[in-house]
Amino acid sequence: MTDCIFCKIVAGEIPAIKVYEDDRFLAFMDINPLAPGHCLLIPKEHHADLIEMTDELLQGLIALSKRLGRAAMKGLKADGLSVFQANGKAACQIIPHYHMHLIPRWDNDGLALSDWELVPGDLAVIAQKAEDLKKAL
Amino acid sequence: MTDCIFCKIVAGEIPAIKVYEDDRFLAFMDINPLAPGHCLLIPKEHHADLIEMTDELLQGLIALSKRLGRAAMKGLKADGLSVFQANGKAACQIIPHYHMHLIPRWDNDGLALSDWELVPGDLAVIAQKAEDLKKAL
Repeated sequence: MTDCIFCKIVAGEIPAIKVYEDDRFLAFMDINPLAPGHCLLIPKEHHADLIEMTDELLQGLIALSKRLGRAAMKGLKADGLSVFQANGKAACQIIPHYHMHLIPRWDNDGLALSDWELVPGDLAVIAQKAEDLKKAL
Repeated sequence: MTDCIFCKIVAGEIPAIKVYEDDRFLAFMDINPLAPGHCLLIPKEHHADLIEMTDELLQGLIALSKRLGRAAMKGLKADGLSVFQANGKAACQIIPHYHMHLIPRWDNDGLALSDWELVPGDLAVIAQKAEDLKKAL
């Protein structure tokens, strides 16, 4: 879709710090991370949400989310992982292109998933976490 | 696992208000719902979390989550859906048997996913929502 930010990232028209890419999927760092290593996993093809996704894409994507989750444990020494995926404005989905949030967690990190303020992270730190994830994939 | 609440629900040793069941998966109502129609989707086989799940189970489960999400839109007239899945104590996973939360959302419902207090819902209402979901599956 021409006015979709994630489609523009897929097309290379907007930069992103990528963690993983293949012909169907892209994982890239959230630039407003809730936690170090917070990344987004999307299908390259535009589908608004879970309901609009094909089963085939969902199935490829969830297997990939496991790999990324394992990389967060191994590469970032995370203790846990919050997986979050919003569908529709009612669920606070801001960008209507299916995306799964993968948020590394640490014991007693005090993260409240409602504190979903869009606070830009330090790009150097984000890039380093992306490297750590990539190495552990 | 003998001391796992969800395994006991699968085995029929603890009651649950079921929405969907087949040989591999079970969807049942959360008795502490964050929103009307809040249900949980689990594999019958015990796997602690995303990392421990097999790709085959994850793939079957996510396709089923789409069916349940669509049923929430159709049967409960939901406007959206929050999908949440916690891995590890650090991510506030309470029951270490993989489960995906499917939380129907309505425009301006004011739900904050951090208000995750375990407040029991009205069982009659929960059962009615389960019936509405089942009919729409």
